[in-house]
Amino acid sequence: MNLQSPSKIRLTQTVKKGGCAAKVAAVELRKILANVPFPPAPPELTIDGRHFDDAAVYRVSQSVSMVQTIDFFTPIVDSPFDFGRVAAANAISDVYAMGGRPVMALAVLAFPVADLPPEIISEVLRGACDVLTKAKCALAGGHSIDDETLKFGLSVTGLVNSDHVWANTGARVGDVLVLTKALGTGTLTAALKRDALSEADIRPAIESMAQLNNAIDFLCDGAVDDLGENGRHIHAATDITGFGLSGHAMQMAKGSGVRIAIDTKALPRLPRAEECLGREFLTKAHRTNREYTASASTFSVDVSAIDQLLVHDPQTSGGLLLSIDPSYADAVIDRLKAAFPSVARIGNVVAGEAGTLEFT
Amino acid sequence: MNLQSPSKIRLTQTVKKGGCAAKVAAVELRKILANVPFPPAPPELTIDGRHFDDAAVYRVSQSVSMVQTIDFFTPIVDSPFDFGRVAAANAISDVYAMGGRPVMALAVLAFPVADLPPEIISEVLRGACDVLTKAKCALAGGHSIDDETLKFGLSVTGLVNSDHVWANTGARVGDVLVLTKALGTGTLTAALKRDALSEADIRPAIESMAQLNNAIDFLCDGAVDDLGENGRHIHAATDITGFGLSGHAMQMAKGSGVRIAIDTKALPRLPRAEECLGREFLTKAHRTNREYTASASTFSVDVSAIDQLLVHDPQTSGGLLLSIDPSYADAVIDRLKAAFPSVARIGNVVAGEAGTLEFT
Repeated sequence: MNLQSPSKIRLTQTVKKGGCAAKVAAVELRKILANVPFPPAPPELTIDGRHFDDAAVYRVSQSVSMVQTIDFFTPIVDSPFDFGRVAAANAISDVYAMGGRPVMALAVLAFPVADLPPEIISEVLRGACDVLTKAKCALAGGHSIDDETLKFGLSVTGLVNSDHVWANTGARVGDVLVLTKALGTGTLTAALKRDALSEADIRPAIESMAQLNNAIDFLCDGAVDDLGENGRHIHAATDITGFGLSGHAMQMAKGSGVRIAIDTKALPRLPRAEECLGREFLTKAHRTNREYTASASTFSVDVSAIDQLLVHDPQTSGGLLLSIDPSYADAVIDRLKAAFPSVARIGNVVAGEAGTLEFT
Repeated sequence: MNLQSPSKIRLTQTVKKGGCAAKVAAVELRKILANVPFPPAPPELTIDGRHFDDAAVYRVSQSVSMVQTIDFFTPIVDSPFDFGRVAAANAISDVYAMGGRPVMALAVLAFPVADLPPEIISEVLRGACDVLTKAKCALAGGHSIDDETLKFGLSVTGLVNSDHVWANTGARVGDVLVLTKALGTGTLTAALKRDALSEADIRPAIESMAQLNNAIDFLCDGAVDDLGENGRHIHAATDITGFGLSGHAMQMAKGSGVRIAIDTKALPRLPRAEECLGREFLTKAHRTNREYTASASTFSVDVSAIDQLLVHDPQTSGGLLLSIDPSYADAVIDRLKAAFPSVARIGNVVAGEAGTLEFT
């Protein structure tokens, strides 16, 4: 039994592996899944995730489809309230990344009953509910388990217009790529865990991770089956999480059969992220993301060593990567700027070998 | 790195807390949730789980609602293939318990990458896919995490006729209570973990846990929005899992505002379950389930000590408890008997103090 008061417990010190960086590496998963005979998929399942994607889409009627996703992880910040906010925003993000709106969520809670006081659970849930309320998403139950290490997240159900799903397979040559949040949460939370920075030092990263990826609320008025004109100019979308900008951009390039060119100098970065990458506050995922994307990527000689690390930095609750009709990119950025101050045009979809990345 | 061959690894020996028995106790959860301000629930959310129920229902159209549930746990058997089957059947069960049919699932996987060989993941997933195929439910993705202890389960989405949801709040005085599977998985898996019984010894329990709770497939023909005449005679349903027959029956009695009378002599029981209860192969949940239901329960003097333990035995992937119009109970049992050989009439809904249980 831990007799410290809840406010003295540093959650990040209770875990060995934190945030999206703790995902089982993509390469390992692909090998494991190769020999598993999946159940037949019905035609209503318009987007499945055979390769452990985080969101699936199932058509319920002509106009409406369900979006289903799940995400949870160990604490990447010390405050239980902030951890709950970040975990909720991160899980809901996958629904937004499909052009959907979240409607209900189930809590996923693993909790070391004997080691942590129950007030921690209340605080985590309060944080999650704060974010769910902003997302207009109900908390409809959940599953809890007594476990060695605290973990929290959500299984989220959303609804989306069946004809305007923002898959990561729709990017077109000529599209402008826009990223809605700054990069660097992987290295900054690693620095926190290693006591090199305080929670106050990385407050901008925490607020960024706790922010909803609800770009759709700013781009599209009306109901779920009326995305509006602006929503249709988003040809593809994905959210940047554990596989980093490089991993998720490569998945989009592969899925869309295009090449993606990224201007590393245009990448928005969180305060002190470059410093922390330079001081080598790295996670296992920095390496596995590099390996995952290595054969698909080229870097021009003037990309700095730090920027090479930045593109592989595993994000927790990172921004949306949007592939937008070039005539409307400025309008989209304008609409998002007030809510997403770091939103930036970071590259283009170009002709070239499908599934490849080019960093300049 | 564990260098044993996968077939030599006994999964139950890798975990401290197994199966549904490892749920955070209901009493603790209620206290924790009391001070959490939940987001507002929209009218479409017709069944929510504020008290950490396992399934929620959200109306998508006049006739169709979504059912959403999540469940996962640590191994309660040693064979990874069987563990995958049991975990999948257990998770899907909550959809069946609402009168729904599962349509898609996301895998929840926590895996100690450094300690267990990846073949274990393949086997667990093969077991899950075997059950998902029988359930005609697609595997649409999932979430994986590198963790200290293996855990597996599913977040399952189902569809249900909006007008014929089998909530656990619809039991009516006079209804007959039917249980579809035998009790005893808690004590039998505890005996396995403590090496008192082998996996071969508890094979009937494993097959019972791996069996789908798809009573609806035998009772109702037709599509999801056409439950048929038989489905309407089921007034309430719930599946028996970690809180045991006592805990889940009490929740039904409370939700329905009725008293429930159970004839303990009629309870179906797995081979050797009584022996294991007598030898005190118990889990923490045997005690917490007794405490959870103590103030609501009366036991007549001729209920044996072993039967008192049996009603609190935490089930993993236990049967459905169905509250049925008395004129149709025999017809329902007849239809279920071939697939569920242990199906039994175990009691009645009676007049009396709401939320109470009477064991005779």
